[in-house]
Amino acid sequence: MKVSIFRRAHFNAAHRLHNPDWTDEKNMEVFGVCSNPNYHGHNYELEVKVSGEIDPETGMVLNLAWLADLIKREVEHRFDHKNLNVDTVEFKNLNPTAENICVVIWQILREHLPQKFDLLVRLYETPRNFVEVGH
Amino acid sequence: MKVSIFRRAHFNAAHRLHNPDWTDEKNMEVFGVCSNPNYHGHNYELEVKVSGEIDPETGMVLNLAWLADLIKREVEHRFDHKNLNVDTVEFKNLNPTAENICVVIWQILREHLPQKFDLLVRLYETPRNFVEVGH
Amino acid sequence: MKVSIFRRAHFNAAHRLHNPDWTDEKNMEVFGVCSNPNYHGHNYELEVKVSGEIDPETGMVLNLAWLADLIKREVEHRFDHKNLNVDTVEFKNLNPTAENICVVIWQILREHLPQKFDLLVRLYETPRNFVEVGH
Amino acid sequence: MKVSIFRRAHFNAAHRLHNPDWTDEKNMEVFGVCSNPNYHGHNYELEVKVSGEIDPETGMVLNLAWLADLIKREVEHRFDHKNLNVDTVEFKNLNPTAENICVVIWQILREHLPQKFDLLVRLYETPRNFVEVGH
Amino acid sequence: MKVSIFRRAHFNAAHRLHNPDWTDEKNMEVFGVCSNPNYHGHNYELEVKVSGEIDPETGMVLNLAWLADLIKREVEHRFDHKNLNVDTVEFKNLNPTAENICVVIWQILREHLPQKFDLLVRLYETPRNFVEVGH
Amino acid sequence: MKVSIFRRAHFNAAHRLHNPDWTDEKNMEVFGVCSNPNYHGHNYELEVKVSGEIDPETGMVLNLAWLADLIKREVEHRFDHKNLNVDTVEFKNLNPTAENICVVIWQILREHLPQKFDLLVRLYETPRNFVEVGH
Repeated sequence: MKVSIFRRAHFNAAHRLHNPDWTDEKNMEVFGVCSNPNYHGHNYELEVKVSGEIDPETGMVLNLAWLADLIKREVEHRFDHKNLNVDTVEFKNLNPTAENICVVIWQILREHLPQKFDLLVRLYETPRNFVEVGH
Repeated sequence: MKVSIFRRAHFNAAHRLHNPDWTDEKNMEVFGVCSNPNYHGHNYELEVKVSGEIDPETGMVLNLAWLADLIKREVEHRFDHKNLNVDTVEFKNLNPTAENICVVIWQILREHLPQKFDLLVRLYETPRNFVEVGH
Repeated sequence: MKVSIFRRAHFNAAHRLHNPDWTDEKNMEVFGVCSNPNYHGHNYELEVKVSGEIDPETGMVLNLAWLADLIKREVEHRFDHKNLNVDTVEFKNLNPTAENICVVIWQILREHLPQKFDLLVRLYETPRNFVEVGH
Repeated sequence: MKVSIFRRAHFNAAHRLHNPDWTDEKNMEVFGVCSNPNYHGHNYELEVKVSGEIDPETGMVLNLAWLADLIKREVEHRFDHKNLNVDTVEFKNLNPTAENICVVIWQILREHLPQKFDLLVRLYETPRNFVEVGH
Repeated sequence: MKVSIFRRAHFNAAHRLHNPDWTDEKNMEVFGVCSNPNYHGHNYELEVKVSGEIDPETGMVLNLAWLADLIKREVEHRFDHKNLNVDTVEFKNLNPTAENICVVIWQILREHLPQKFDLLVRLYETPRNFVEVGH
Repeated sequence: MKVSIFRRAHFNAAHRLHNPDWTDEKNMEVFGVCSNPNYHGHNYELEVKVSGEIDPETGMVLNLAWLADLIKREVEHRFDHKNLNVDTVEFKNLNPTAENICVVIWQILREHLPQKFDLLVRLYETPRNFVEVGH
């Protein structure tokens, strides 16, 4: 029987949306105020879902303490209180849209998670705008 | 890689549940106080999920501003501060259960969304009762 | 030492804002879409605060089960799944604005509450619009 | 067209995580403070999803009042204000991890639900830690 | 100008309501299922409000990191994953009602907070039942 | 009888905490990661409370549509998707702590609000850290 466990975490970061191959007018037309050159920011809320079988010895799919720790070490420490465009290697050349941030977080966590588990990552940029990657 | 984006919106409306082929007793038996002839109402909370590939130029599946606008124009303007049974063509002859409202909204949005995208619509009638249509 | 206890409850109702002494144009100008003649509705969320001394025998200001029961009997049963303008005596001749509904609920509860307790009532019409009466 | 309906409920319970085949040290190492011998507790929040076709006569997949009742009778009455390890037959010999509680609730509800419906159960142990069973 | 800062925290604990001077019948009559002898539990949500003047050098009333730390050290470490009736000295002879827990937390924090600040503590036993102490 | 109305709004902004009279070390010591030179950001959630008498003609303390508009024009347009330290005149020489931002918003709204009304402003920097100004 497939069971999923979820863990929520959050980080606060600054960013701007910008395509360097475009003119400022094109950037403003597509990204609107999100392309403001001096950045704005968000309380990013992260929801990580890991699916697998229950281990009969522990009664758990995966120790949530281990997962919370992995997220803290690999995601929160990397992005919390940072300027995504300026302070991180991941978004030096990648537009930090919610979609791209979510894909990057999925890739980071996927590497550290045993292959037998499925992984889905949801990222809230605001309570009304959010994205999801994986299955 | 499949990525999903979500947008939340809301509208406030009156409605009653009623099957005109049934007696009042049968309506009360099946729908309870929801069949009160003078209507009651809800703060409907809507969650729209669109899935597709990330466009490498924008870093987005779909511009969320475009989606927010579509929802405002096609759903909020149509149903907000309305009596669903009386003021709308959609529910003149269709019982406005949460399920039916959700299907109608899914159909409206499906027509305006390019076919390459998947669409799922979730509708909260209250924080404890909600429905979902699509995939 | 003054201690306060809070209880939350909710009811779903239809209403419209309307001043019968005004023209339809004036009503529309002041109340906007809220004056739609066929009603709209809300999930009203109620928060009741009662303040007093802790009874050393029970460790409670007031038994929350008693308060929850009072709210159910006197407020929820009266207004839930009703059309406030049509189905209730309280709003036959009183405009059911959030402010007036909140005052009416405060008056109803005040009558049933021993005088030694203070009473404050908060009413959410939506998560973003709410009102408060009492102290 | 597949439609899903959701109902939320909750219950408050005490529990501890413990594998009787392990030493106290091993229990503490794996379960941490969750293995405290005198128990701790949670406000468990339950979300039940039932999927099927809309019945054209009622406009509903399933009467939500029936589902709310089923959950109250079979889940809330069984587990609310209980010590899961001590007061319930289900967890006399089964470690009450969020995963196992969720599986047990899924099995209980599955038995009472007509086979044509799909069932998914989500259980929040805290707002940041939760699990899901079914499809 | 008076300014207030707030910090939220939480702890998960087991408890039962019980007056040892009463018979079991009287306890059950007053406290209902909350007096279950084997305990139940809650996710307690704590909200601490500190009021004072803004320090012009820091632009802060009080360093929120210091306040968060104080709450973690003095409240969370003391009560998290504990059985309040059994594992704590504070409730050995004091009924752990929400009111009494809130007063105890207020007293603990009051001792560590400079006298120039006002202190108010709100404690959620559930999202619908909560209490407040202080000003 | 005193009645209060509340309106919630939000804006997303970047900021950093910094006292230019201090060394970098002192700034880091007091403000921690919040003093990161390249900024971070938040989804600021704003709650505005206006208290006064109910106008018997409208049944309202103040037209919430007018208040929502005032907040949009004077607060959201000024701060949304901005870098508070760089893009605003208000925080050119004032440290944008939550306390100072809240005082500035209180002052802006106070000027536009008739003197007979009381005003209280609450600002959430995150769901767990927030501040309040006024009465």
